[in-house]
Amino acid sequence: MSSKPPPRYQICLIGSGGVGTIASLVLTKSGVAHVTCVLRSSYTHISQHGWEIDSIDHGKLSAWKPDRIVRSANEAAKDTNECPVIYDYVVVCTKQLPSISPIPEMISPIVTPGKTTIVMIQNGMGIEEDVIQAWPGNAVMSSVSHIGSSVKSPNTVVQIGKDVSKIGPHLHAGIDDSISIERSKEYVKMYNMGGASVCEWVDDIQLARWEKLLWNGTFNTLCALMRMDVGELQRSKGREAILVPMMWEIWNIAKAAGHPMPETIVQWMAYRLPDDCNYRPSMLLDLEHGRPMELDVILGNPLKKALDLGVDTPCMSMVHKLLKLEEWKISQNQV
Amino acid sequence: MSSKPPPRYQICLIGSGGVGTIASLVLTKSGVAHVTCVLRSSYTHISQHGWEIDSIDHGKLSAWKPDRIVRSANEAAKDTNECPVIYDYVVVCTKQLPSISPIPEMISPIVTPGKTTIVMIQNGMGIEEDVIQAWPGNAVMSSVSHIGSSVKSPNTVVQIGKDVSKIGPHLHAGIDDSISIERSKEYVKMYNMGGASVCEWVDDIQLARWEKLLWNGTFNTLCALMRMDVGELQRSKGREAILVPMMWEIWNIAKAAGHPMPETIVQWMAYRLPDDCNYRPSMLLDLEHGRPMELDVILGNPLKKALDLGVDTPCMSMVHKLLKLEEWKISQNQV
Repeated sequence: MSSKPPPRYQICLIGSGGVGTIASLVLTKSGVAHVTCVLRSSYTHISQHGWEIDSIDHGKLSAWKPDRIVRSANEAAKDTNECPVIYDYVVVCTKQLPSISPIPEMISPIVTPGKTTIVMIQNGMGIEEDVIQAWPGNAVMSSVSHIGSSVKSPNTVVQIGKDVSKIGPHLHAGIDDSISIERSKEYVKMYNMGGASVCEWVDDIQLARWEKLLWNGTFNTLCALMRMDVGELQRSKGREAILVPMMWEIWNIAKAAGHPMPETIVQWMAYRLPDDCNYRPSMLLDLEHGRPMELDVILGNPLKKALDLGVDTPCMSMVHKLLKLEEWKISQNQV
Repeated sequence: MSSKPPPRYQICLIGSGGVGTIASLVLTKSGVAHVTCVLRSSYTHISQHGWEIDSIDHGKLSAWKPDRIVRSANEAAKDTNECPVIYDYVVVCTKQLPSISPIPEMISPIVTPGKTTIVMIQNGMGIEEDVIQAWPGNAVMSSVSHIGSSVKSPNTVVQIGKDVSKIGPHLHAGIDDSISIERSKEYVKMYNMGGASVCEWVDDIQLARWEKLLWNGTFNTLCALMRMDVGELQRSKGREAILVPMMWEIWNIAKAAGHPMPETIVQWMAYRLPDDCNYRPSMLLDLEHGRPMELDVILGNPLKKALDLGVDTPCMSMVHKLLKLEEWKISQNQV
């Protein structure tokens, strides 16, 4: 009688939106992981029907489920026999709303101190700091994802942009660098085994974050503030008047923080999309639906860094202040 | 047989909104003026029905008309016998949209070079410059009005705030200062004879304009950009975060331009209205109705001045750029 060997890695993933669901699929397909997904609002629907997935990387899948789905991190903390589970990796794919849902509180039941590696697939800057503070002996790493994937109905995920990501460790004093590096390289290997389009290990993950912030800190924020899609922002000349100066502010903070980017990246990032592009970035969609925006990590934390480093940020500061007023409006509607 | 003496002043007024209609009433009531009003869109309605006026200063008037109403400046240029009229004062109460409706072009038929005094009852800064350039030998003066008056139906004007204004000459090289001063003092005398609440002659009319700009350049622009009424802007803390810093920028430009205001004016201007004030400033109403905004004279010209004088204006510049994008959106909807 032959039995399947137990998977090498126990993984718990929280936040199954467009990005998280594809990540859970890739990790499951790697063949070396047992993947538990924490589904909050969608648990009942997915437990009955599974996911309908239409993916540029993985084709069409019907009624797909990861190895296990649970309602909460507390439920994930024990297996079906009520025995504690020690996770090798906790993968966090939620929106980054530190003032509403702090990550350490959210994942506390599924992180084993000194053991679990925490993987953050999220937007913004400085997002690792609270996690390192909460578990100073754990490895923490980031995946900077450029996937185009979204949830179209309660159980349909459509992935139109290839799963391209850069992954690397957040080195910190509480754990040997060699361990942090090894854990992140193992994860990259597993993720590539699962059929990701391109998953690249990088030693300077902060640089990858700053690069992505060039887009998220500018197109994402300005489209939201002005209620414009990407093409409208470009055709209105808002790109030249406001967006490019904002990009240079981000470029300057990154440089002062020790993560210089090539100068050519600003031109490339500002002009890579066509003027008829009707893409509506996530922050604009959040604003239109009265949902909280990832403002703190996308502009708030970079501005704190700029203040520490003495970098001038007139455009970013104003856009941040104006979007704070939009946040206030959203908060008023919720009362 | 006795005959009424001819009125001392021939006046033509253009722009009969809430402000202009009350001004035409006051000038008519002075008893020393013959007042012709140029009505464009409202001519037919007013010629049939006159104005219904409900005024805190003048009470209720029904079917009121000035001495003459005409359809255009060209029609005003001749009297009913087809003889040319030489106007003593041309009073301009239109919106200030220099790139859409330049004032010199608009009033050209009714200005006699070297004779007619041009009175501008309008928002913004630098509005006199084009007029002085067009008629270098004419007196030009401004009335900075703090009236609360608006058109409620095609022929109804409701004035809820008293008609308080400061009036003074724009002295310039093409005409003796003594003449400019005299013309403006005669106008103030006439306006007070007509029952204005308070009409005060001032020698530094630019100072009065800068004072009014403290409000128009901040509450008016920010309420428009954020789609907030005055109370919402205050309750959201947008006042402390953005509005007060913008006021200080205006204060600094005025000081550098030789028109210093007392420091206490910023606090007074920013905090004079209650937090439940639901007033929606004119620029917000224009934006909501897809109409052109007075952005060039309210922020554009002061920013040119700031650039000339080397005054730093990070907040004003950004708000100006962002409202330019709103202007672009309005222009797109008109195509």
